[in-house]
Parts: sequence; C-alpha cells; structure tokens
Amino acid sequence: MASRLLCEIDLEAPGKRTGFLRLPHSTHESAYGWIPIPIAVIANGRGPTILLSAGNHGDEYEGQIALGRLIREVEPGQVQGRIIALPALNFRAAQAGRRTSPVDGGNLNRSFPGVADGTPTQQIAYHMDSVILPLCDAVVDLHSGGSSLMYTPSALARRGDAAVFERQLGMLRAFGAPHSYIVQPGGLWGGTLSDACALRGIPQLGTELGGGGHATPATVGVAERGIAGVLRHLGIADLDWDGRVARPTRLLQVGGSDYFVHAPDPGVFEPLAEPGEEVKAGQPAGRLHQTEVPWREPIAVHFARDGVVLVKRWPGMTARGDCLFHLGTDLGG
Amino acid sequence: MASRLLCEIDLEAPGKRTGFLRLPHSTHESAYGWIPIPIAVIANGRGPTILLSAGNHGDEYEGQIALGRLIREVEPGQVQGRIIALPALNFRAAQAGRRTSPVDGGNLNRSFPGVADGTPTQQIAYHMDSVILPLCDAVVDLHSGGSSLMYTPSALARRGDAAVFERQLGMLRAFGAPHSYIVQPGGLWGGTLSDACALRGIPQLGTELGGGGHATPATVGVAERGIAGVLRHLGIADLDWDGRVARPTRLLQVGGSDYFVHAPDPGVFEPLAEPGEEVKAGQPAGRLHQTEVPWREPIAVHFARDGVVLVKRWPGMTARGDCLFHLGTDLGG
Amino acid sequence: MASRLLCEIDLEAPGKRTGFLRLPHSTHESAYGWIPIPIAVIANGRGPTILLSAGNHGDEYEGQIALGRLIREVEPGQVQGRIIALPALNFRAAQAGRRTSPVDGGNLNRSFPGVADGTPTQQIAYHMDSVILPLCDAVVDLHSGGSSLMYTPSALARRGDAAVFERQLGMLRAFGAPHSYIVQPGGLWGGTLSDACALRGIPQLGTELGGGGHATPATVGVAERGIAGVLRHLGIADLDWDGRVARPTRLLQVGGSDYFVHAPDPGVFEPLAEPGEEVKAGQPAGRLHQTEVPWREPIAVHFARDGVVLVKRWPGMTARGDCLFHLGTDLGG
Amino acid sequence: MASRLLCEIDLEAPGKRTGFLRLPHSTHESAYGWIPIPIAVIANGRGPTILLSAGNHGDEYEGQIALGRLIREVEPGQVQGRIIALPALNFRAAQAGRRTSPVDGGNLNRSFPGVADGTPTQQIAYHMDSVILPLCDAVVDLHSGGSSLMYTPSALARRGDAAVFERQLGMLRAFGAPHSYIVQPGGLWGGTLSDACALRGIPQLGTELGGGGHATPATVGVAERGIAGVLRHLGIADLDWDGRVARPTRLLQVGGSDYFVHAPDPGVFEPLAEPGEEVKAGQPAGRLHQTEVPWREPIAVHFARDGVVLVKRWPGMTARGDCLFHLGTDLGG
Amino acid sequence: MASRLLCEIDLEAPGKRTGFLRLPHSTHESAYGWIPIPIAVIANGRGPTILLSAGNHGDEYEGQIALGRLIREVEPGQVQGRIIALPALNFRAAQAGRRTSPVDGGNLNRSFPGVADGTPTQQIAYHMDSVILPLCDAVVDLHSGGSSLMYTPSALARRGDAAVFERQLGMLRAFGAPHSYIVQPGGLWGGTLSDACALRGIPQLGTELGGGGHATPATVGVAERGIAGVLRHLGIADLDWDGRVARPTRLLQVGGSDYFVHAPDPGVFEPLAEPGEEVKAGQPAGRLHQTEVPWREPIAVHFARDGVVLVKRWPGMTARGDCLFHLGTDLGG
Amino acid sequence: MASRLLCEIDLEAPGKRTGFLRLPHSTHESAYGWIPIPIAVIANGRGPTILLSAGNHGDEYEGQIALGRLIREVEPGQVQGRIIALPALNFRAAQAGRRTSPVDGGNLNRSFPGVADGTPTQQIAYHMDSVILPLCDAVVDLHSGGSSLMYTPSALARRGDAAVFERQLGMLRAFGAPHSYIVQPGGLWGGTLSDACALRGIPQLGTELGGGGHATPATVGVAERGIAGVLRHLGIADLDWDGRVARPTRLLQVGGSDYFVHAPDPGVFEPLAEPGEEVKAGQPAGRLHQTEVPWREPIAVHFARDGVVLVKRWPGMTARGDCLFHLGTDLGG
Repeated sequence: MASRLLCEIDLEAPGKRTGFLRLPHSTHESAYGWIPIPIAVIANGRGPTILLSAGNHGDEYEGQIALGRLIREVEPGQVQGRIIALPALNFRAAQAGRRTSPVDGGNLNRSFPGVADGTPTQQIAYHMDSVILPLCDAVVDLHSGGSSLMYTPSALARRGDAAVFERQLGMLRAFGAPHSYIVQPGGLWGGTLSDACALRGIPQLGTELGGGGHATPATVGVAERGIAGVLRHLGIADLDWDGRVARPTRLLQVGGSDYFVHAPDPGVFEPLAEPGEEVKAGQPAGRLHQTEVPWREPIAVHFARDGVVLVKRWPGMTARGDCLFHLGTDLGG
Repeated sequence: MASRLLCEIDLEAPGKRTGFLRLPHSTHESAYGWIPIPIAVIANGRGPTILLSAGNHGDEYEGQIALGRLIREVEPGQVQGRIIALPALNFRAAQAGRRTSPVDGGNLNRSFPGVADGTPTQQIAYHMDSVILPLCDAVVDLHSGGSSLMYTPSALARRGDAAVFERQLGMLRAFGAPHSYIVQPGGLWGGTLSDACALRGIPQLGTELGGGGHATPATVGVAERGIAGVLRHLGIADLDWDGRVARPTRLLQVGGSDYFVHAPDPGVFEPLAEPGEEVKAGQPAGRLHQTEVPWREPIAVHFARDGVVLVKRWPGMTARGDCLFHLGTDLGG
Repeated sequence: MASRLLCEIDLEAPGKRTGFLRLPHSTHESAYGWIPIPIAVIANGRGPTILLSAGNHGDEYEGQIALGRLIREVEPGQVQGRIIALPALNFRAAQAGRRTSPVDGGNLNRSFPGVADGTPTQQIAYHMDSVILPLCDAVVDLHSGGSSLMYTPSALARRGDAAVFERQLGMLRAFGAPHSYIVQPGGLWGGTLSDACALRGIPQLGTELGGGGHATPATVGVAERGIAGVLRHLGIADLDWDGRVARPTRLLQVGGSDYFVHAPDPGVFEPLAEPGEEVKAGQPAGRLHQTEVPWREPIAVHFARDGVVLVKRWPGMTARGDCLFHLGTDLGG
Repeated sequence: MASRLLCEIDLEAPGKRTGFLRLPHSTHESAYGWIPIPIAVIANGRGPTILLSAGNHGDEYEGQIALGRLIREVEPGQVQGRIIALPALNFRAAQAGRRTSPVDGGNLNRSFPGVADGTPTQQIAYHMDSVILPLCDAVVDLHSGGSSLMYTPSALARRGDAAVFERQLGMLRAFGAPHSYIVQPGGLWGGTLSDACALRGIPQLGTELGGGGHATPATVGVAERGIAGVLRHLGIADLDWDGRVARPTRLLQVGGSDYFVHAPDPGVFEPLAEPGEEVKAGQPAGRLHQTEVPWREPIAVHFARDGVVLVKRWPGMTARGDCLFHLGTDLGG
Repeated sequence: MASRLLCEIDLEAPGKRTGFLRLPHSTHESAYGWIPIPIAVIANGRGPTILLSAGNHGDEYEGQIALGRLIREVEPGQVQGRIIALPALNFRAAQAGRRTSPVDGGNLNRSFPGVADGTPTQQIAYHMDSVILPLCDAVVDLHSGGSSLMYTPSALARRGDAAVFERQLGMLRAFGAPHSYIVQPGGLWGGTLSDACALRGIPQLGTELGGGGHATPATVGVAERGIAGVLRHLGIADLDWDGRVARPTRLLQVGGSDYFVHAPDPGVFEPLAEPGEEVKAGQPAGRLHQTEVPWREPIAVHFARDGVVLVKRWPGMTARGDCLFHLGTDLGG
Repeated sequence: MASRLLCEIDLEAPGKRTGFLRLPHSTHESAYGWIPIPIAVIANGRGPTILLSAGNHGDEYEGQIALGRLIREVEPGQVQGRIIALPALNFRAAQAGRRTSPVDGGNLNRSFPGVADGTPTQQIAYHMDSVILPLCDAVVDLHSGGSSLMYTPSALARRGDAAVFERQLGMLRAFGAPHSYIVQPGGLWGGTLSDACALRGIPQLGTELGGGGHATPATVGVAERGIAGVLRHLGIADLDWDGRVARPTRLLQVGGSDYFVHAPDPGVFEPLAEPGEEVKAGQPAGRLHQTEVPWREPIAVHFARDGVVLVKRWPGMTARGDCLFHLGTDLGG
C-alpha cells in the first residue's frame, strides 16, 4: 500500500529546498487538512545520502535546534551528496513539546515499520520506512532524555550485522559525544527507527544529548559538532561547526536488567548519583519520599552493579515501575 | 467565619505529634470525604513558634523532603519552643506533583488571605491565615523553581516594616543560601503567604532552591542546612544538619521590569546564560527557535541591564509572555 | 440583586401548571440559551405552601421518581394550599446523573444562600433562597446516599429554634422512614438548603433513602409514603399512597467525630457491617485491601463507639480521608 | 484595588504605538508568565478618545479583522484625538477561536465590572472598567453572532440616560449597518461592557455583524465602513474606507419574550426563516428533527409575533432551551 | 469473521419496518449495552435495492433530515424494489453532531472496509461492507460540508469501471444538484464508502449539500428532490417531492493539487471568494489575519488556476495545512 | 512474536514467590517505565497448574480481595501442584477501579488473544494467551457485575468440547455458588479469556459474584469458598476456607435475546425485579423515568419470557440500548 504522505518538495534534484511533508488528516475542525511536517533537502554532486532527523520525540530539543541551523546555514555548494533533514518528525508531538503525539497518543519510536492507513504517527513511520529510508546511506536520529530523563551527553548504536556495526562505530567516533554506548538488538522495546534501519542494513546512530525537556547551549553544541563530524566522516560536507577537530568519546555498553534501577514503590524521587558519575554495586542510588505521610521512612534503592551513570530520572513525582537510572560499562571491560 | 478545616492533632501540648488537617470535600466519589493535609508539631518548654511549610506549590520538592526528615528525626527534647511543619500544604497539588491544585486549579500562593467557604485551595489559605499564622513568631516557606523555572539556590525576603525587615535579614543570613535577594512589596503578584505574614507583622523568609520539577541532594542540602541555621538563630533548636557552621550568602535585590526577560514570540527556548552567571546589558539572553518552520530565523532576546542571573526558564516549549530570566543586583549596588 | 432565573409558569394562581425555571447560560454552543429546570405547581384553596425538591444532588433518584409521580397524578382538587415541586433542582447534575454539576463543578447543597450573578449552581441556590423559600411554610428536600454512600432508609432534621424543631419532629414522624435522625446545626458542612431554611425559620426535613446511584421500588416507596404522610400531616392533601397509615420510625441522633469512620490509608474497601446493623465500640468495621501489592496486609478499621450503622461507603476504590461509615444512637440514649 | 494588568505602551503621548497589556498568569507551565493582550493607540492633537474593541468573544472575527487593518493603516496625522484599539480583548478566547476563555471558562461580556484579583477574564473586565473606560468619550465594541448564532448585519444600542441615548443614536446612524436595533437596559443578562459604559455615562455602540464563527468580506466591510462612519461623526478621523458616504440603516427595537423563539425539546434544528426576513405571528419558525429515532415526528416551533428576523441559531445540534430566533420591530411601530 | 452487529428488523420481507442495528459496546457505564443505529426498510414487489445513508459524518444534517422524512412518509405501496435507509450511520458521531465518533475518534468515511472486531466505527464499516452492500444495486451517501467546510450544493461520483461510471452519471443527472463533479479514484484519501462500493461494482453517488454544521430548507430541498429523482430514475418510487421535474446540473471535475488552496500559515481566515463563484488563476483567494499580533500583515493566498469555487473553509480560526478552497472545472473543458 | 512482558519471578521452581509482570510502557512521564502487574506463584510437588485471575475488569473486587488472601495465607506445603495468581490482571484498570483501562480504553476481556506489540491491554492478553495459559491445566477467572450490573452470586461456564465441558461442570459444582449458569459459545461478544481457554482446550470457570462496583463479606465469601472448593476438587490444596463442605448450586442456562431486557429509550431506571427473583413473561421489569420533563409518562419495559433474574442494571441513569436484566432458566428445563 502506498504511503498517504505527499512531499511538497523534490528530493531528487540538486539544490536546497524546504517545505512540508503533507500528512492528510480529516478532522471535525478541518475535513481536508494536512499535518505539515517540515522537511528540507540540500543536494549537490555525487555522494551519499544522509537522513538527519529530530523531533521523533517532541520534547527533545537539541536536534530540532541543530537541524534548524543546518537548514538555514548550509548551502548546496558545501555538499557532496545529499542531506535530507526532518527536524520535527512526529510533528504534532513536536508542536506540543510532548514525547508522544497528542493526536493519537502515538510514540513514533515504537511505531516502526508503521501502517500505511493507520494513525498519523503510524503513517509517519510508514512513510519514513517505505519512502525515505530507501533513499539513505546513513541515518542520524537525534534524541535527548525528554521530559522524564536526564542523560550525560551521549551517542549510541546497536549491535547487529558486523559490517554495518563497523560503520556505525566509525560514525560514533566521528560524532564525538562525551560518552558513546552500544545497545543489544531486541530487548523489550521494538518498533524504533533504529530497528527499521537495521532491517534495511543502513548504518544508524542515535543520540541522548541531555534532557528534562530543556536544552542548553552545551548540549546543542554536542549535537552541532557531532553532525559536523559525521558529515565530514562520510564525505558529505566539511562544516567548521566543530573547529574541524574530532572530540574523543568514551565507549560503553549497556547490558541486562542489572544495569537498570526501577522504582519499587511510588514516591518523590531524590537521586543520589548524577549522570556521568562512576558508581559501585550496592551504593545508594536514591530515595523515594512518602510525602503524603511524611513521617514514614523513605524507600531506599541501590545500584545492582558497578558502572557509569548514563541517565537519571528527572521528575520528582515517581510511580512504581519508573526507571530511575541506567548504567553503562566500558566496552570490552 | 470559622475555618472548616479540622486539625487531628493538638498543636498546644508539648511533645511530637503527627496527623492530618482534615479539609472537608464533598465530591461525586466521596460525599463526606476530606483532603488529608499532613501536619506535625514538635514542642517543648518555652520559646518561639516557627511555621515551616513546603508543598505550597506541589512540584517544588526540596522543602517537602527536608521537612519530612525534620518530622522523622527531631525529637521534643531538642526543641525550645514549637515547630509546626506542613510539608505538603496544597495537598492535592503536592499529590499530583503540580504547581496548582488539580481539584480547583488554585495557585495557593496567589490565594491568601483565602475564603472560609471557598474552593479547597482558598480554604487552605484561610485556615493558614486565620488559625495557624496567629500562633507563629516566624515563618519559613520553602519554594523552588517548580516545573517551569530553574533557580540558583536562593532565599528571599520582602521589604516592609523596618523592624520586621531587620529580623528577616537575620533569618536570611542564618539560612545561608548561596544567594539571597530582597523583593519589593506589592508588585504584580499578590495573595502570597508572604503577603499574609507581612500584614500580621510576622518575619517570613522564602526560598527558591532549584527547580525544573526535580530535586538534587545539593539543593535538598541547602534546604536542610538553612532550616537548621534559622532554628539555631531563633533559639528553637540546635541541630547538627549544617555542621553548626553558618554559610555566607550574597545579598541581592530584584527591581523593576528591566530585571526580567520575557518571550516576545513563541518558540523553543535556547537559553544563553545560566543561573548564577553575571551578565551585561545588551548581552544575548536566549533564542526562540521556530521549529514548525525551521528555515525561519530564531528570535533573539537580550538582557536589558547588568546583573546576576537568578533564574532561567526550564521548558523548551515557550509561549509569548513567558518569563525567560530574571536578574538580581548587589544590595546597595 | 434580583435573581436572573425566570419562571415560565405562574406560581400564584390556583390550578396545576408545569414548565421550566429558565436559567440564562451563555456558552460557546448557545449564546442566548437557558438551562431548563423543571418546576410544577399544584394549588387550590387556602392552606400552607410546601416545597418538595429532589435532584439537589443529581445521582439521588428516589425523590426525582416520586416527585414525577406526584406531578403527573395529583390534581388541584386534592389539594388545600400549594405544592411547589422541583424534582431536578441542580438540573445539569441531574441530567448527568452526577452529584455535582458538570457545568461548574458546583455542589448545590454547599452553595446556599447562593450568588445572584454567580455560576449556574450558585444562581440556582440564590433563586431558591431569595424567591422560592419566601413562599414556603415547609420544605422537604429528598436526598439519598448518591454514588458514594448507601444509607438505611432515613429522614433527618437539624436542631435549632425550639418551635421549628418541634414542627420538624412532627414532620419526621409523619414521614415515617424506618430510621430518623437529628443532626447538629453547624458542623463542618455549610451552605445547605437546610441551613437556608433554618435562617428563615422554615421547618425542613431531609431524607437519605438508599444510595449507590441506584433506586429500588422499596426506597422509592419510602419516599412516596413519606411525602403522602407529610402532606396529610400539614393538611395539604390526603393521598392514598401510604394506605393512609403512619409507619413507625426509630429516632436517632448523630453526634461528633466518634460517630464516623474514615479511611486512614487508600485501598479497596471491604465493609464488615451493613446499614441498619447495631455495632459496638472496637468492633471491626472494614478492611482496606492493598490490591497493587496484594501480599501486603490489608488495613483494618474499627468502630469508635456503639451505635446503629446509618450509612456505609459504596465504591470499593477508596482514598485516604473517605468516609466509610457513620453511626446513630437512640435519641435520649 | 489596583488592576494587575500592566500596559507596555504609553497611552497618553501623541503618535502611534503597539504592544501588549500584560496580564500576569502564574501556571504550572509558566510561573511568572503573562497573557499578552494586543493594544494600540493612535493619538494626535485635541479631540475625543474612542475605544474600539473586538475579540470580547473570541469567535467573532469581523471586528478583529477590521481593527487590525485600522492599526496597520491609520497614521497619527489622520487623527484628531485618540483611538485606543483592543482587537483581541479576551485574548485566550480569541487565540482559541472560542466565545469564552479556555483558561477560566469566563464569558468576558458577562463579567463586568470585573474583579481586580479574580480569574484572567475577570481581571480583564476590571482593567477595562477601572483603567481604560475612564479615558474614553465613546466606545464601539464589535461583536458578531459567534459560533452559535447568525445575524443579519446589525448595530445596536441600549436605552438609558436620554442625552447618552441621543448620542448613541447618532453613532448608530453614522455606523450605517443595514439594520440597527435598540435594546432595553437590564434584561436577563448583565455584566456587559455596555452595562459598564452606561454606568459611566459613556455613549456605547455594539454590533452583531454576521456569525457562525465565520467572517466574509461583506460583513468585514460593514465593520470597516461603520468604524469610518463613527470616527468621522465624532470628528476623530476622516478615513475613506466608506467612500465617505453614510449608508442608511433601518431602526428597530427588541422587546420582551415574545420576540424570542427557544427550543422546547432537543433535536437537529432546521430553520424555516432567514435573518432579514419579515415574519408573522404563528408562522412556522423551524423544526427540531429527532435523528436518534427518525421515525418520530419532528417538533415544530412558531413565531409568537410579527417582526423582522434579526438572528437565527446556527448549529444543527440543539438542546432544550437554546435560542432559535429573535425578532425586531420598527422603532415607533 | 462475522459482523458483530445485530439487526432488529427483517430486511428481506415486504413492508415497512423501523428499528436499530445493535452494535455491542461493553463499557464501564454499560457492560452489556449496544449502540442503537436507526435503520428502516421499505420493500415491495420486484425491483432494485437502494441504500440511502446519511450521518456517515455526524455534523452533516441535510441527509439526516431528508431520510427521516422518507422513513415517515413513504409507504410500501409506493415502492417497487427496496429502500434501505440508515440516516445516522456513525451513530455516536450523529448523536454528538460531530464529524467523528466521540467514542473512538473514528472517521467512518476513512474506515472502510472496516474491522469485524475493531472499534465501533470500524465495526460499522465492516457491517456495511460485508452485510449491507451485498444487498444493494445502488447507493446514495448523503454528505454536506460539515463543521469545517461550506459547499455550493453538489453531488459527486468517482471515475472507475466504465459501465458503473455510466450508471453513476445517470444518477448524478437524475439527482439534479446545481453542481455535480467527478473525482479521481485513489487520491490521498482512502477507506470511503465510495471506495467500498467501487470494489463491489455498485454504482454510488455522494453529495456535498452545504455545510458549516448547519442545514437550510434550501439545501434540505436539494437532498429531497435529489433522492426523489434518483428513486424515479431507478424505477423504485415516483415521489412528488421534486414536482416530478428534473433539474439541470452543471458537470464539473476536480483534478490535482492546483485545484486546492491550503493555508501556508496559521491565522484567522477571511475568504475572498464564495462557493459557486468563477475565479481566475492568480486571483486573491483569502487572507490569514495575525490576530495575536494584529500590527503584522495578514498572509495573502491566491488561486493557482481558473475554475468554479466548489467549497470554502468555514471556521475563521485556521491552522497551517487547512484546506481553504477547492475548485472544479467543466467536464471536457 | 514474543511477548514484551517480563516476569520478575520464577514460575517453575517450587516455593512461594511474589513480584510483578513488567509491561514496558514508554510515556511522556516515564520513557523507560513499566506497568507493574502483581503475580504470585505457590508450587509444590506434582500436580496440576491452576491459574486464578481477578481484576480482568478493574471494578470487580471480590476476586481481587480473595486472591490477596490466598497469596498471603497459603503456603507451599499446603499445595500439590501449582497455583498461579494474578489478582489485578488489567492493572491500570484495577488501579483506577474502572472496567476498562484508562491508558488505552481497552476492555481486557474483549481483547484475547491479544497483540504482541499492541496497546498495554492487548499486550496483557497476548502474554496471558501465549505464555501463561500454556502452563495451565485449569483456569478460574473471577468476575463480578462491575459498576453497571448487579448479579445474584453466580459462577458460569460455556458449552464446547464435551470432555472439557464435563470437567467444567465438575468445577462449577465444586465452586458451589448459589447459582451457576451455562452460556453458548460465540454470541455477540468475543475475545474473552474464556474464548482463549476454549481454543486451547483448558477447562475454565468464570464468576459473577455481585456488583455495583462494591464488594460485601457475603460475596467475598462466595469467592473464597468457591476457590477452596475448586482447589480441593482438582487435588491442588485442601484449604479450610469453606469448612470443607460443598455448597449446592442451582444449574441454569442463558439462551437468546428473549432472556435479555434492554432500554428502548433513555431515562432514570427503576427496576421492578431483583436478582434471584423468579419472573414471568409479560411481567413488568422496570420503568425509565423522564426526569428532564417529569410530567411525561415513564417508559415501561417487560420481561419477554419466564426465568430467574440473574442480573439487573445498577446505575439509575440509562441510555437507549443499555442492558436492564438478563434471565436464566433451569438446565434441562
């Protein structure tokens, strides 16, 4: 079944063009309206095609900001190949500053490979998977911790086909985030853009640049330098956004459930470790305060293994089952 | 008109007691139910009465955590006088982790002196003003930036009656937050607990300990050391929470509209200065990115005067009129 | 200030008329619309005026059903005096089957004496207090337990002026509910129709006929026989709805907080006593089951004194502070 | 009590300035934010001050459009006196395209004279009444039928003080809408901007330019020519928007309840007369179709008197009590 | 899988019967309830079966009104063949006066061929496609512009199989709407009842009779005369609703994206052309007014080609991507 | 596709363990959180595996309470075989006390066999069907009438494979509810846990223990004695919860649509028969009171056949199509 999204701009011709992917959405308020997903292409000469995406989750801002700058500043003459930029991918979520779409509740990064005639979020996944990905030689999908998590600035890739993984390691090093980590294919989540790329054998890199629904110049800078590094590494563009100097990255991996700390009871979360910190098995990780009956003892939680804190939960108010931390350990370590 | 709230515990007798302020709330789900606002008293011998409150805004957690510790750890034998602690003052807001009450939309700190037979939030304000404040010789109301703001850890007091102000300055120095600042009475806001204290001539101190709807051990520590400092200063208790050493504070003031930066247009906010940083008039303060049409230039905003950044906006998604920053300047400067 | 409600029908002339109290309500969907509160009058000859009301809380159905029958069946020739019937008093609540109005959240029986230009619920209270009550010599306001409570079929009156109270006792005996009980003026609630009647010196009787948001022929029968009894007692009409035989009632009183059992913690409520049952101080009253973590022990609650169970909570899902039971004790006992 | 709204622009100096009335609104999403109500002033030389307002109801667009044009096009040199323009008065309602504010449910035109520390809608009313109206010699408040009504293009004024009424008649004729009508003071509604002007003795004119939540060039033209006519009549400006030719108007009056047709039962409304049409007493006015059980007969409604149809209900879906039509009759007829 | 809907009435026997399609819907409020979709059959003798449907979108009223009249007035003796009428097809949407179902958000006319055990809207589509359509020789599905669009009264058919298309042209001419237009199969929309008919080779005609969520006697008249014309054309009935005189229709077609005008930016929409009007390429189509900052210029939009305006957007408040107009051009032109 | 739910506890080893089924749910508030569905296993020696489930509908409490007791009280030494207990199966619904999940609107007992990557409710169904049921030799799923229905305490089983049905009859008798009834496979509902068991040939018994969203000691007792009876019957455990005495049960069957009474029009429901009562064809079943226009006659409904009332509707407020009653008739009768 063909994707229902219509692209206003020509993705094939050389030059720079901006416009919208039109996602038809027939509502009480607008019977023949469409959801306008911004898209840009900057193409010139021969070379690979890279997809740069952000706003897959709408409350993760570094990539949205960095890709906006790229669209405004980079000219075709600087490019060998093609950059396709989609900085507000799940548009209604990005418009609302929410992880998920207020239109259908959809989490785009759990919706791949999508459904041609499904909900708007599913239709976006389907269009990306069936129309955009087949054009691409590499993909960088820019995430951050969003409203509920705060990461130490990181990039990540998943294991899989050895040749693809090798190319992803090269992209990770070129991106040069302070931390980089490797995740296992599969796991409990599925339906990610990363899964869709793996099925097509396209090297893909993700990021977790900060979080809390907030962006800082520092984390936007990691995104900008990282994009410049990857574009240079792939021979697509030689921007000066990173001083043309590669930054070192510490390579980690994330393993099974002992890398994670979840809340065993509800409460107000007080974290006792910070992203980027080294921790030991048995070390106190946080407390869940019983603010409805404050004379009751808070619940203490501990780390189950040694590692580097990659992420902590951000909101104080916490439910049983919420993820409080996850760790990484040095690759090969 | 008498307050409708009923206190389960005796606030007059010596000793330590915990229980609930019962706020009658007749709903579809519970015709004769009450909202249970936790309250504690620790009293012993002669000495002043201090009210310690938190959860006035439900998404400001440092004070809620610190007062829980105080209720659990401090025993009557350590006290000369009386501590009344209300760590989840606007209970439904605190239960939800929201600034305002999900029951009535009320912002408790804009609702004083309250209404005896008003909404639950108004009834809480009325009870505090008409029943609790008359018992008190001093008040510390523990706030933080909440979900929408991030402060450098601060305490604050308002100008007013000279004798009261002098005592407030003493409490500010005893609290020992890294920054302290003085605000003008009046201004555009009204209806605060601070306003209610001023009308009764009770010295009152507020705090802004951090924010973003998150608490850290560092900001909880400022709260705990500050409480200990004030209790010692007033001769009520000599806790060892602060090593019994006063921390220095930098005294600032906040003036008129040139101390504030507001968003002139909607967009995704990228701050260009951090809380605690010194800035100059004309210096770029932030950018509002147009993520719906990312090829449009972001909107630049600037500081209108020199000063120290006390607070920045936290959420990326920003509307016209949102406060992005406010500054302080050295007192006497 | 004059009431904004307009009555379609003439309340003064003899005869039987039905129509609506028109409450102007200017909304997005209807700029010049009104809320149609059904009203009926049946008048003939000389005699007292009685107000019969139901639907004060919209999920209490016995009175709504009984007054509908009265409006359809009773003819002016059967009446000496005047019956004003308002069977769906807080109309939007009655239309929705909710205790409170979905338009403004208002609980009509906490809103007296009302506000002339307030919310719709406040305007109804104001109209009743300022326009309808001055016409009346007696009032019967028919309630039931509603969605959250289940009563043993009861009628009630409040202490106050001795002469008025005497007349209320006469009405209680004439109503002939299985149980009748006396409540203290004041208490934590205020703003009831009963309060408004007391201020005007009008004898008033309330009922609590059953509950759970459900009506049965048995509880409707108590309402119908009770109305017939009161109308005969006051000399207004001699209906045969009760076989013209007065039923005995057991007279009780409800005292202070030891008559009530509230939930000290959340949980799923399992009641261990039934409405109408005699209980003893210390007897188990119920359990609150911890169904989120079912291996934790349920919370046990007990009665604080001897008495007759007048009401139990109906919904299983229970919050801290919800009323689980209240008792009555024999009057003079 | 002083209004809490702060005006960014100087309303006193000559020249043209635009900016916002800042209404402080402290929410979960923005603790120190304000609602930005656009305001403009165009002043020059000596002459009267006129307030031109629209967006009092947010779904009435002709005035919002016409005042935008005036703000962009009219220069101080064209003015003798002062024009204060507030084209989106209840800003949150205007932003949402709703009659009432989504923030507080408030209908601004039922909220005068407002409350200084009330809801945002009440604060706007208070600011208009206490700060803006005292500056004004005349007021034109531009309304339309909104989402629920469709008017024949009309202007209106209310009876009252004879001298003020005379001046209002002059303004009505200068405005030159196809129909003009006179309403009685009081009535069931209250709290309008018109009421506030009458209390201050300020001549005020309203409009009902069309409706259905839609604007057409024809109805916008009535607004623009009318504004030009009034400004010329008052000697404030001589714009060429109306070809400098006064249009004739038919003067009508609206009387009591027989001028109105309301829905006696719910249904889908099929109107049988159109705005501007002459009708006779007893003539069919419309039908209410029972679409849930379409084999039931529709409910027929009729006009109660002769007259000109000024307005019909717009939405098909209709509740009991909704206004379906109101009429006017020739003044003096 | 069998449809879960149960039809109360026998569709096979001669005579006239009315009742409900019962759609089982197990909810919190009604565990064993069903959604009652009204259905009628009028059958007599030999002849074709026609399905007449309305309320596919709940805020399109002409067809709902006209089919109610047909159900009440037409008797079996007037019929040769069978009329199956479903005037409130997506019942929960029709009950609410909304385009889409408030139960599941479903747009029925994007849901064909449906899902047997899907949402209520999907189950309706499945029942229509698998149970009702196989009974039918022709289908007329009566639509209007709904809340967001205003059409010039039109009927439409889609190209496809030549023989079916010929029969559809005959039905279009017999329907005799002022305008008729032909659309291409496919396009961006899918899942319509028209698509389902095309797959089964059933001639189908749609209508767009007016809109804005409003019906007039004029547009209801087009529906009634059109139904009469088609029934006579097919030999099923010879009603006198149209004076038995065929009305001429102007035959148009709708082509690709240059026939459409969409909003390139948000704003309050002022249309500059009316349905039925002839326009030229480059002619101004409308303006989008920036009412939040009214001193900014409105956005102008233009027609991209010559044509007849078939539809304009109705609500003033407009988002980027909303359809403002579409055109038709003479068939063969 | 593998189930995404992860079980914290080992279901295979002997002993007693409690913990959570972790259902990953990535939301705005918790990107890596999981829904914690409580699960317990008590295993010892050789013997069959029985699944005991409750909270399939979250507002049905008897089974939730009884299984909590079983988890707390029964020790491995009392067991021969294995008990798997899931007392809050659709956890978000049970947490909310709602029939359906507030997260996705899902009715778990219409969702089998589920979807591996579907909504949370669909994922629970999938996990039960693909992971848990294959472990089981027998299943008891404990239901009650929920918020909208009130049953006479009953157990039920469905016809199907003769050998399985024989074993189900044995379980029904061992359960010993006052009434037991047999339902037909298929019918209008589908997707139940019972359907899933039938497809796998697992004997399954359901219950309907009471209802109205309320539990009593009496109905909890039926659940507890029934569980004990089935466990003894299957040789898994010999608890003394039922005094080790089997209770007699009356065996009934439920047939086609004449066993059911549905509301033909909306109104306030007054039932005229009670659960457990014998009724005759033509006997009045209830009345639907027209409380919006109380002078209109109520709608009378009647039973269509003789039988025993198994269930009546609980809430007064009733819509067209709601089920008011269903009957049973003696098996073999």
